[in-house]
Amino acid sequence: MTHQPIDPVKLTADLVKCASVTPVEGGALVLLDKLLSGAGFTCTRVDRGGVSNLFARWGQGANGRTFGFNGHTDVVPVGDADAWTVDPFGAEIKDGILYGRGSTDMKSGVAAFAAAAIDFVRNSPPDGSVVLAITGDEEGDALDGTTALLDWMDAQGERIDHCLVGEPTCPNEMGDMMKIGRRGSMTAFFTATGVQGHSAYPHRAKNPLPAMAQLMATLAAHTLDEGTEHFDPTTLAVTTIDTGNPANNVIPAQCKATVNIRFNDTWTSTALTNWLKREMDGVASLFDISFDMRTKVSGESFFTPPGELSTLIAKSVKAETGVEPVMSTSGGTSDARFVKSHCPVVEFGLVGKTMHQVDEHVEVAQIEQLKSIYSRILTDYFA
Amino acid sequence: MTHQPIDPVKLTADLVKCASVTPVEGGALVLLDKLLSGAGFTCTRVDRGGVSNLFARWGQGANGRTFGFNGHTDVVPVGDADAWTVDPFGAEIKDGILYGRGSTDMKSGVAAFAAAAIDFVRNSPPDGSVVLAITGDEEGDALDGTTALLDWMDAQGERIDHCLVGEPTCPNEMGDMMKIGRRGSMTAFFTATGVQGHSAYPHRAKNPLPAMAQLMATLAAHTLDEGTEHFDPTTLAVTTIDTGNPANNVIPAQCKATVNIRFNDTWTSTALTNWLKREMDGVASLFDISFDMRTKVSGESFFTPPGELSTLIAKSVKAETGVEPVMSTSGGTSDARFVKSHCPVVEFGLVGKTMHQVDEHVEVAQIEQLKSIYSRILTDYFA
Ligand SMILES: [Zn+2]
Ligand SMILES: [Zn+2]
Repeated sequence: MTHQPIDPVKLTADLVKCASVTPVEGGALVLLDKLLSGAGFTCTRVDRGGVSNLFARWGQGANGRTFGFNGHTDVVPVGDADAWTVDPFGAEIKDGILYGRGSTDMKSGVAAFAAAAIDFVRNSPPDGSVVLAITGDEEGDALDGTTALLDWMDAQGERIDHCLVGEPTCPNEMGDMMKIGRRGSMTAFFTATGVQGHSAYPHRAKNPLPAMAQLMATLAAHTLDEGTEHFDPTTLAVTTIDTGNPANNVIPAQCKATVNIRFNDTWTSTALTNWLKREMDGVASLFDISFDMRTKVSGESFFTPPGELSTLIAKSVKAETGVEPVMSTSGGTSDARFVKSHCPVVEFGLVGKTMHQVDEHVEVAQIEQLKSIYSRILTDYFA
Repeated sequence: MTHQPIDPVKLTADLVKCASVTPVEGGALVLLDKLLSGAGFTCTRVDRGGVSNLFARWGQGANGRTFGFNGHTDVVPVGDADAWTVDPFGAEIKDGILYGRGSTDMKSGVAAFAAAAIDFVRNSPPDGSVVLAITGDEEGDALDGTTALLDWMDAQGERIDHCLVGEPTCPNEMGDMMKIGRRGSMTAFFTATGVQGHSAYPHRAKNPLPAMAQLMATLAAHTLDEGTEHFDPTTLAVTTIDTGNPANNVIPAQCKATVNIRFNDTWTSTALTNWLKREMDGVASLFDISFDMRTKVSGESFFTPPGELSTLIAKSVKAETGVEPVMSTSGGTSDARFVKSHCPVVEFGLVGKTMHQVDEHVEVAQIEQLKSIYSRILTDYFA
């Protein structure tokens, strides 16, 4: 029986038409489940906390190695709907460009690796397994997405030996960047509490605002490091300071502020938490204001040292595009931060310029090129 | 014809029962108008900008001197109604204490001087005039209150030679303080504007928060002066810093902050505005963030040097209470800041501990004592 190759552009368009804004499944995983099951993949829906995820395996884990792809079908909200010049879920193609929410981030990536995987196992069944771990909770809290899939895999004794995350990674042209790690990300929420009073009698009150202003100025002015071999410097951004006191004649009792830190392998979230606490305690005692801090760690920094996986991917990218991808650790977080505890993980996908924006779009030619790159990776991996 | 003395406690209670929360007249000025008219005062309602005020004169301006009382019948809102243990407008008297919104600030003061003035002109009509200038807009913006009365007086050729404002002035016990001036008050509203961006790429954004934090920390840490002969030091209170950015992964474009300054005779609002602008410009250029400042001046500092009026009041207080009042310039603003351009002005009233609070209350004995003090002042002034 001869199969037609799967068209990754049509598959991207079909996925874009599913309005899968986190946490809504929107039909995207159902569609992939059907397609992959039809191609001989064993599909399991791993749903948790109101979010849908899909685990698809071809081949028995006992034989050979397992190559995994990870991606997400959920998308960020449309935003200002009136600003769009096309239907965000219309998947319209004009002049070789496919438009729609999720067209770049990352339904094209999912379509490209699903198409590559199906063609590969049909035409050159490997001595090994191919796994697709696709989540519907990457753009949200990511509490019940890739982590749910990894937890389920642990429970089932399922394993991936090497994993490629298909997020868009190229800043300018197809093939120019892959990600071999990411900085960590954590957020600290501060509350300073004093004693409310009248503006005319500041000595009878304890104003928390000068203390909070001093703490934020100090944290923002501090250089945490100068960067490392594979990482940019750690950065700290004060993202909000809020009091909500409308009365000019009142000294408020409380003020809140938030800082977000993107940190390299110089730091762990624990070390940063300790540093923040020291700075906070110093200001608290200097100003005689009581402070409280809560932290939320989105992910530690991680890094897959250049090796077999990154070399394999770089070679395939170069062969298909003529471009040598830079091995970078820049940018925000991604689900690779979860996968890295399971196996070596690298991220490679197409150009991400319009992700999360109005009129998000992708070049049709890039989707086809991405499928070719993923196909070549599979062939070389199992060769 | 013999008149019963006016009972200042009953009058206070009657006024408290009028729910005259700024700018509502609530029947309070109508009640006083009727009472004063009946006692031979010429009453004029001076209403402006939706606020009611009452001007009452006994005697012709041509003969002798004119002594004026100034006060307000409007009150601040009830606040947390559930926290009150009595009806805020019930004027309940328990164990010698009268409860209700405005009982201290300052319906008791208005009742005491109205009662003193009526008894005085009836029993010992002076060679001169007694004026009561009562406003319904002291707790609000005060744009159409005492200033409206003074504007109207100017237009009519009406004059007061010495004025006593009946606000509560005693911090601890009856008679312990009078006010011979007040610090000025001004508020500055700052806006810092940068460029919004993603927390992971701070170098592509311009975060206004560290600049605003630095400016607020700098302003709050600055000693403006050490106080002067009759004044406490100038104080600056940061009253709010607000951003309203709920997204930890976003660097916001804008931040706002407000500072309130209470200043002595070392400063004018213009000199302070220039100082604020210099500090702001310094931070703006250091951080490359654009800043904007708007100021609102509630009143310049003012001072009635110790003299005939303050001596007269101190003597009367001492005679009635046995306490020597301190001549102070502490505290917030009051309508004396408007009256001072018209004539020498001093403030004296009862103990203000519960003003603006839940379960605001006043000792009945203090109201009676206050009437006695005001009566003695009138007698001595016209002696
Ligand atoms: Zn994505
Ligand atoms: Zn008052």
